Amino acid sequence: PTADPDFRWRGGEVSRVEAFSDGIFAITVTLLIVSTASIERFYDVWILVRDLPAFLLSFAFLMYAWFEHHRFFRRYGLQDGLTLLINTMFLFLIMILAYPLKLLTTFLWYLILGIPSNQLFSTPPDVVLNITEFMQRTYMMYFYSAAVVGVFGCLLFMHLNALWKKQQLELDELELVMTQKSYFHHLATVTIAVISMLVLWLTKLPGWSGVVYFMMPLAHFLTGLYFEFKMNRIKATATEPQNNQ
Amino acid sequence: PTADPDFRWRGGEVSRVEAFSDGIFAITVTLLIVSTASIERFYDVWILVRDLPAFLLSFAFLMYAWFEHHRFFRRYGLQDGLTLLINTMFLFLIMILAYPLKLLTTFLWYLILGIPSNQLFSTPPDVVLNITEFMQRTYMMYFYSAAVVGVFGCLLFMHLNALWKKQQLELDELELVMTQKSYFHHLATVTIAVISMLVLWLTKLPGWSGVVYFMMPLAHFLTGLYFEFKMNRIKATATEPQNNQ
Amino acid sequence: PTADPDFRWRGGEVSRVEAFSDGIFAITVTLLIVSTASIERFYDVWILVRDLPAFLLSFAFLMYAWFEHHRFFRRYGLQDGLTLLINTMFLFLIMILAYPLKLLTTFLWYLILGIPSNQLFSTPPDVVLNITEFMQRTYMMYFYSAAVVGVFGCLLFMHLNALWKKQQLELDELELVMTQKSYFHHLATVTIAVISMLVLWLTKLPGWSGVVYFMMPLAHFLTGLYFEFKMNRIKATATEPQNNQ
Amino acid sequence: PTADPDFRWRGGEVSRVEAFSDGIFAITVTLLIVSTASIERFYDVWILVRDLPAFLLSFAFLMYAWFEHHRFFRRYGLQDGLTLLINTMFLFLIMILAYPLKLLTTFLWYLILGIPSNQLFSTPPDVVLNITEFMQRTYMMYFYSAAVVGVFGCLLFMHLNALWKKQQLELDELELVMTQKSYFHHLATVTIAVISMLVLWLTKLPGWSGVVYFMMPLAHFLTGLYFEFKMNRIKATATEPQNNQ
Repeated sequence: PTADPDFRWRGGEVSRVEAFSDGIFAITVTLLIVSTASIERFYDVWILVRDLPAFLLSFAFLMYAWFEHHRFFRRYGLQDGLTLLINTMFLFLIMILAYPLKLLTTFLWYLILGIPSNQLFSTPPDVVLNITEFMQRTYMMYFYSAAVVGVFGCLLFMHLNALWKKQQLELDELELVMTQKSYFHHLATVTIAVISMLVLWLTKLPGWSGVVYFMMPLAHFLTGLYFEFKMNRIKATATEPQNNQ
Repeated sequence: PTADPDFRWRGGEVSRVEAFSDGIFAITVTLLIVSTASIERFYDVWILVRDLPAFLLSFAFLMYAWFEHHRFFRRYGLQDGLTLLINTMFLFLIMILAYPLKLLTTFLWYLILGIPSNQLFSTPPDVVLNITEFMQRTYMMYFYSAAVVGVFGCLLFMHLNALWKKQQLELDELELVMTQKSYFHHLATVTIAVISMLVLWLTKLPGWSGVVYFMMPLAHFLTGLYFEFKMNRIKATATEPQNNQ
Repeated sequence: PTADPDFRWRGGEVSRVEAFSDGIFAITVTLLIVSTASIERFYDVWILVRDLPAFLLSFAFLMYAWFEHHRFFRRYGLQDGLTLLINTMFLFLIMILAYPLKLLTTFLWYLILGIPSNQLFSTPPDVVLNITEFMQRTYMMYFYSAAVVGVFGCLLFMHLNALWKKQQLELDELELVMTQKSYFHHLATVTIAVISMLVLWLTKLPGWSGVVYFMMPLAHFLTGLYFEFKMNRIKATATEPQNNQ
Repeated sequence: PTADPDFRWRGGEVSRVEAFSDGIFAITVTLLIVSTASIERFYDVWILVRDLPAFLLSFAFLMYAWFEHHRFFRRYGLQDGLTLLINTMFLFLIMILAYPLKLLTTFLWYLILGIPSNQLFSTPPDVVLNITEFMQRTYMMYFYSAAVVGVFGCLLFMHLNALWKKQQLELDELELVMTQKSYFHHLATVTIAVISMLVLWLTKLPGWSGVVYFMMPLAHFLTGLYFEFKMNRIKATATEPQNNQ
């Protein structure tokens, strides 16, 4: 509980749902990092070092998703049917998206390093596809935006479910605001991904739709600022009466 | 416990048997999803998206088996020798069947998409087999029906064991009916798989034996209806006296 | 505790050492079963079915080792430095031996099926070895006997450690006999493996050294018989006084 | 608690952070040992036996890191943001370094066996690199020293954080000294790795920088000696007053 002093953790012992989810996260992360790098000579270590930032970015994303998942289950201890269903979808998306995520971070890292990345847009020799690299980029933007909507949509609905059950969970005023904070953070992420898809649909330019994601830091900063302010006000009024007496 | 309000969970802390089973489930599921899809270029992501329903179906089946396993151990907390033995067989079947299951769901999905699937019935170049595709389909129907009998037969015997131990477990009237409900659901599944094998044996037509599985929703709907009715009647009589006073 | 009614389980909550060991067991078992069978067409399912007994035998062996490990930690709850060291060696051996074990069970199964197994005694094309298949069989018998000594020697020393600490663990008379029973079972296994190695060293005949293992059932039956008798006598005297009063 | 009699374990139930970390450790270790050795004929078992010491050394290193991690979380039960961040970096490094570590231990073992190891310094056929084997050795020394700094730097900062929070954790005098002991052990490891890098930078001789690591046993012996002495003095004064009364 020292990890989260303002929120009473309703999840008591670690449940099997959480242990199972942790298992899937741990295996997905480890396979992503370990199994792709076949280290058979020192040269491979050098390539590993070169591509480390791409690995790190994928890892950071997965750990962020894990952390949100972990905090949700520790805080609310929900195990109702809806939570289990959303959790199952969430885990499926995490597993499905791990490798495409590393492909994306590798692609971005190659862009920065100036390593040619057209190999990533190639097709197997026995497949004839009449699509240009530009069309591939367009499809990929749709795919990754949809993935963001999927993963954070799951977290969004988990928190929405907790808000619905606020009386059953006996959330106090501060806990309610903290739940709303998480909810609006995930809403911001999902909304920006949807906007990115709309921009792509309207302009047909994958570059512009990528630029939309630069709104992310600002949106999260503003969401955080608003709710931190609200939380501080509640904490202030909560401690005041005690000081008066 | 909010996950299962009518049933007192006898399984206290998560036991090592459960943790070990969860580990095997988590690894099997993750390897199934992650390791088969080697994502090295964006084209592979496209194939992944195309085959997503096949993945999802395998995943849903495994998660359903996990959920039944999880609920059984949480509800009854049984750790006797028989339960451990059945559990070990159950885990072995889950591991053995994971990849054949994905092959089946891929095959069914290719049928729907209209992608030619005769490659799935091929043999390695160095093997000469005098069996036709039709015979292969026949054998496969036997295999998958036997697999269903194996997996759900394990769950069936686990619940039968709980019914035998009903006094030791101190099951109340409602809990007894809920245990019977689970038992009869698994019995329905096993029975239909056996009927499918019988139909195949009599008609020699794999198509007809596949059609038998369409009885599944009806059988489970009727089983559910009967026991839900029984459960509601018990709940009604259980709360009545309290209202009278 | 219903799993082991005569023995008070000193291991309370599942410790991290146990959880870590379970993780290693679960992954080793799953990789053994899942990753070796690449199922890409229905023909591969057929091969999987054919080799199922070999899989099952490896799996049964690993599950037996897990079960002994599980019971030791649940019963004694030991976490001293010596136990941790032996446990680490035990896990290392389990991981190292998993694949050689499956090779052995496959070999034995091919013998039974009459499938030629000289391919299992081949060498890679770029390696020139002046050893005959007979010498390979000899080395292999040494290897597998040493493996048995290693794995069951670890379990032997774990139980010896528990016997040394009998006062600290407050083992009652029955529990002491049950600990001795486990100890002598593992001693029987190790002794037979050592005898097999001695026979091989003296006769130079791998066949004869394999035959030594047929002593296993008898040795364990006699060990079990002796200690079951002792346990029953203790139980009888333990309940007698209560009946008198 | 019998594992660590002088230190009150503040970590109660195993947290999800620990379970998740254990999962990553277990998978990394198992993949390292299991997946690299493809055992398809008895000849492969022979190679496995030959390379066993290299496996064992990698395994021992990873288990040592796990043990330090395990003890830290059991002893202090810290779950603050800083600990989670350092832990995440620590896990990332463990995953990244597992295979390079086995490469290094294999290389060292080949040196001892006299097996030519220039294959480990080769480059793929499609890559032209104008670096000599000597330069590769230099880079590798930097890499492995940096890895040591990374892994043990994480453990260093974890313990530093515990020292900062000594009042909140209510460490008694003995526990404080034991925490300092762990801290200085990790500091010694990090310092020697840094010295090795400096020696390499100054002399440009990878051999000399490797020799620096032979200081390791002496440094740890002296650190241990100093703190064991301090711990014994505290234990003596702690028991004295009780004897006087």
